[in-house]
Amino acid sequence: MKELGYYDGNFGPLSEMQIPMCDRASWFGDGVYDAGPARHGVIFALDEHVDRFFRSAALLDITMPLTKDELKALLQRLLREMDDDELFVYYQVTRGNPAVQKRSHCYEHGVPGKLWITLTPNKISDGAEPVSLITCEDTRFLHCNIKTLNLIPSVMASEKARDAGAAEAVLYRPGELVTECAHSNVHILKDGVLKTHPADNLILGGIARAHLLRACEALSIPTDETAFTLSELFAADEVIVTSSSNLCIRADRIDGKVVGGKAPELFERLRRYLLDEYMTVTA
Amino acid sequence: MKELGYYDGNFGPLSEMQIPMCDRASWFGDGVYDAGPARHGVIFALDEHVDRFFRSAALLDITMPLTKDELKALLQRLLREMDDDELFVYYQVTRGNPAVQKRSHCYEHGVPGKLWITLTPNKISDGAEPVSLITCEDTRFLHCNIKTLNLIPSVMASEKARDAGAAEAVLYRPGELVTECAHSNVHILKDGVLKTHPADNLILGGIARAHLLRACEALSIPTDETAFTLSELFAADEVIVTSSSNLCIRADRIDGKVVGGKAPELFERLRRYLLDEYMTVTA
Repeated sequence: MKELGYYDGNFGPLSEMQIPMCDRASWFGDGVYDAGPARHGVIFALDEHVDRFFRSAALLDITMPLTKDELKALLQRLLREMDDDELFVYYQVTRGNPAVQKRSHCYEHGVPGKLWITLTPNKISDGAEPVSLITCEDTRFLHCNIKTLNLIPSVMASEKARDAGAAEAVLYRPGELVTECAHSNVHILKDGVLKTHPADNLILGGIARAHLLRACEALSIPTDETAFTLSELFAADEVIVTSSSNLCIRADRIDGKVVGGKAPELFERLRRYLLDEYMTVTA
Repeated sequence: MKELGYYDGNFGPLSEMQIPMCDRASWFGDGVYDAGPARHGVIFALDEHVDRFFRSAALLDITMPLTKDELKALLQRLLREMDDDELFVYYQVTRGNPAVQKRSHCYEHGVPGKLWITLTPNKISDGAEPVSLITCEDTRFLHCNIKTLNLIPSVMASEKARDAGAAEAVLYRPGELVTECAHSNVHILKDGVLKTHPADNLILGGIARAHLLRACEALSIPTDETAFTLSELFAADEVIVTSSSNLCIRADRIDGKVVGGKAPELFERLRRYLLDEYMTVTA
């Protein structure tokens, strides 16, 4: 299959899949998701993604309809249906509705949620080419640590970036404190130290971010999990964007201004480390 | 029909309706809605609701698939399919996807959205019985003036209220400034003046709220659109909750403490005015 969709026990070509109108995704975006790349039949960092997926659900009191092991086995099973060898593996759970409950903000505790899966062709970026970014006010809610389906502010910021010919939007809160990007984490290198926003409720603690921090440890690069400002961003030696689909990329322009490029060897060591890790695990 | 669902040109019993998995509601909650009660074939305050619906869509750059007049005619047409005489008329539009676009935060401008409608039996409250409330931190995004499908914080606050045996949750921002409830507006009467949060980006400017302000004008009750604090809420002469489904109700308890009840005649004049208006228009 080229693009696969799965919903609550059934699967088929994604474009033909239908879901019940009364799923709570429809009225409230009432669900959480996780996702990552797969290559040669191996889903990268699957345990970490599935752990975060279950944590997100627990934080919203959404009851999982299956165990972690069952989910992993199901994803592996569906992977075998696919034509392509490099894929994006996406899964979400929406809050269970007892029977065809009327639309109601309130819900019943403990009703098993509905599992959704999509598998689509995907090539991860090797990060060799730098990207440009824009800056954008962070207008999101205070639950950014949960990977929810309430993504309108990220949609608007992403489209604003694309309109400007940029790859991503760097978001900032009052005080010009940089949080993260619309669908990536952002970090800076300055004087040999990697600085990144702490993994609190204002950012999604990325799996790629965790791998970057571990890469820093392995390469003896000191890290500082403290929020930095827009001024620090523009004055950084390097600006690094990480996500599950683009492991580790540097930015060379923000809002049209030249940034980074002052610690190319340090960046290259990190990029190579993360790319090698990905290629080795999915060899 | 008892409960009707409509999606993009097709309709049927709500519990049987299916929608394409790749609608952007599924991944991003990428849409806006509006809703209100109908009685005796008349949809109450329809022009006001439809105007707000189109404003919400425009604020998110969502292209409407039909005109205001076409929407009103369609709602009236579907109303005739219904068995019940008192209904809740709900409609939403989700951002258009060119064909079966892969899940992508970015979108194409100008692609017509998908229209969803549900019609379900509904009785509005006459507001004669007071309700109890709880208070809850307002953790929502900064686009509360847009009636979006990104409703997880409202879902969580509503369920917290229900768990506590309360009808609604009063939300407050830093500084203990009351904004609104999870799915209603909240106002206070103090020394003969009605005080309510200004209709900025921190609240949804309710149609019932607008009717309440007009009722105050008609009844020569001064109004003050200034945010008030939790302390003012607890010390108010009356606490009033308004929404399209519960026109005008007073609260007699918040977080288990007795509140209001000190201006019963003033509240009763407002409640009667709004109930009479509804009953007359939908007679």
